[in-house]
Amino acid sequence: MTGIPFILRFREFSFFGYLDGNAKRNQPTVPMRQLFVLILIIVLSTAAISCNDSEIQDVQNQFPPLEYAIAIHGGAGVMSRDMPAETREAYIRSLTEALTIGRDLLAEGASSLDAIESVIRFMEDDPLFNAGHGAVLTNTGTAELDASVMDGRDLSAGAIAGVKTVKNPISLARHVMENSRHVLFAGEGAEHYADQAGVERVENSYFITDNRRRQLERAIERDEVSLDHSGGSATGYFPESANDRFGTVGVVALDRDGNLAAGTSTGGMTNKRFGRVGDSPIIGAGTYADNRTCAISSTGTGEEFIRNAVAYQISAIMEFTGASLHEAASIVVHEKLKEGDGGIIGVGSDGSIAMVFNTPGMYRGAANSEGLFDVKIWD
Amino acid sequence: MTGIPFILRFREFSFFGYLDGNAKRNQPTVPMRQLFVLILIIVLSTAAISCNDSEIQDVQNQFPPLEYAIAIHGGAGVMSRDMPAETREAYIRSLTEALTIGRDLLAEGASSLDAIESVIRFMEDDPLFNAGHGAVLTNTGTAELDASVMDGRDLSAGAIAGVKTVKNPISLARHVMENSRHVLFAGEGAEHYADQAGVERVENSYFITDNRRRQLERAIERDEVSLDHSGGSATGYFPESANDRFGTVGVVALDRDGNLAAGTSTGGMTNKRFGRVGDSPIIGAGTYADNRTCAISSTGTGEEFIRNAVAYQISAIMEFTGASLHEAASIVVHEKLKEGDGGIIGVGSDGSIAMVFNTPGMYRGAANSEGLFDVKIWD
Repeated sequence: MTGIPFILRFREFSFFGYLDGNAKRNQPTVPMRQLFVLILIIVLSTAAISCNDSEIQDVQNQFPPLEYAIAIHGGAGVMSRDMPAETREAYIRSLTEALTIGRDLLAEGASSLDAIESVIRFMEDDPLFNAGHGAVLTNTGTAELDASVMDGRDLSAGAIAGVKTVKNPISLARHVMENSRHVLFAGEGAEHYADQAGVERVENSYFITDNRRRQLERAIERDEVSLDHSGGSATGYFPESANDRFGTVGVVALDRDGNLAAGTSTGGMTNKRFGRVGDSPIIGAGTYADNRTCAISSTGTGEEFIRNAVAYQISAIMEFTGASLHEAASIVVHEKLKEGDGGIIGVGSDGSIAMVFNTPGMYRGAANSEGLFDVKIWD
Repeated sequence: MTGIPFILRFREFSFFGYLDGNAKRNQPTVPMRQLFVLILIIVLSTAAISCNDSEIQDVQNQFPPLEYAIAIHGGAGVMSRDMPAETREAYIRSLTEALTIGRDLLAEGASSLDAIESVIRFMEDDPLFNAGHGAVLTNTGTAELDASVMDGRDLSAGAIAGVKTVKNPISLARHVMENSRHVLFAGEGAEHYADQAGVERVENSYFITDNRRRQLERAIERDEVSLDHSGGSATGYFPESANDRFGTVGVVALDRDGNLAAGTSTGGMTNKRFGRVGDSPIIGAGTYADNRTCAISSTGTGEEFIRNAVAYQISAIMEFTGASLHEAASIVVHEKLKEGDGGIIGVGSDGSIAMVFNTPGMYRGAANSEGLFDVKIWD
């Protein structure tokens, strides 16, 4: 249903532009009343869509295009409103600091790639977020980290999966993008690549916090991994606490040169099976950037984001139907994904920002050259 | 340019259907001549697109929908027409046998998943193809195998990357899809998963043929991997022989129940870096299937297929613009990818078949319930 008005809106220019031309009285004609009804249908359909959008639209599209814009996320999930005030304040404080880093860099004229890398490094280093230091643990008690980055100028991309000793996975992903002809390295191969790339290395224990170790112990006590291969029970696999499930960080940005970039970094799921790869290192699922459309970073149940090629699908809807970033993101998050799967942040080539999720909350923030600066957890 | 006629064609029904309504003489009107010009533009654009398509269309869309259809590929590349007659005949013979297995299964009412798994297992076991036995070797002289499979009924998917001891990677990918809540396992984790899945295991030496070992020795002599991280030279990374680059096998099928499935299996690139993951295990890049649109399997320069989300992009163009399978595949292979990148095979939900590539050749075959049975290497 919602697809139709996008197409019609996309075609308004040529269609109406043409029919407005000068008419000669003696030409054969078609009835104006019928055309009027057709136009009315288009206008009403468009209005109906716009109405739906306003419910979930965090930031309206801006015209003319903004000089720069940035959005960040620190994961989507249940995030009970009863969380202790100090926890909430810690998240708000950290998100505010992260967003400030990115906003200031972009204001000074930094590239979107530099901005997203700097912000993600900050979030990786912060134990509050499930990426880098403070990542959740696999069922063998180790941290295995995934990250990906994409450059909207030329669709170049880099990603790594399952690294155990790279302090800032996002920087290794960027190294893969800029210095290798490959896109994705996994496991031992990614470590081997890191040896040659000269990025900062740490012991695996660097990533592990007491908090995450207790989370894993609780998950193992509840046997939350034993049914992983059975496929039989919805309770068998996912950690009980939805807060544990969706930790990921991501940043998308538009810089003063009009270039988009997106990056995502994660420690995956608590008690995840050894070797499982989620959507964060998958270009098209967890991360996508194309200067012609948008930059997207996803967070949620990685498998659903892979099956639906979520990050790329939003770009594709914009490219092939002329939909706005927000319309495209809403279709994918609210119609293609299931309730509770997660969310996305996006920046369009015009500087519009979308932060759309189907979970109760998403740690997030957005800023732009018009003075917007907003950090939120819930609706 | 080519996007426009699809949209217009997609909208023809409601637009022209409406304007054909009864007109009253005394209503205000718009000039018929201008409408006629608009219609003419649409018709000519559509005709132009159809013309382009015919050059590359292997099999026309069929109406009414076919009972079953299948397409297979054994990799795309340069494939010199000077290849020895016995080599050419060996490929034709093997492709014919593979296609017969799939066609017969579908004719007997087998599911598309069973058909693609059986055919890919046959091709994995055949040393002619770069998958399973006869896979190309990494720069450490081992075989590392990737595979993925997707079920068009519900978008469920399974994939494995970098396995070294699983005789038929496609069957492990299917096991992941049907018995795990995850989509992708990589490296040691995939081996660990295989331990529990009970699939047939072999020593890594099983995969290695004398032919592939000689290929690797030649590649190492030519130092074809040393510049992998430099990004400086186009000759530094890829094996000299384009035949070595694009080995992959894939099968797509529509069964009598109207269900689509796609699968892909590969040994990757000769002398590829340890741990590099290409597009074959990436759902959306190497493999995609959605009953509403099509089933796709890719073969080529994996990195380009990941950046362009090739398999999913074809499905997205069909879904969002109403383009045919062949139109969508042609846009992606001939306009989005670069000459020489590779190709795709696809089956649409109506049983239409597309085999589109931008290399001189692609080992391929197609069969359907109308009696089509065709095996080809070049145009």
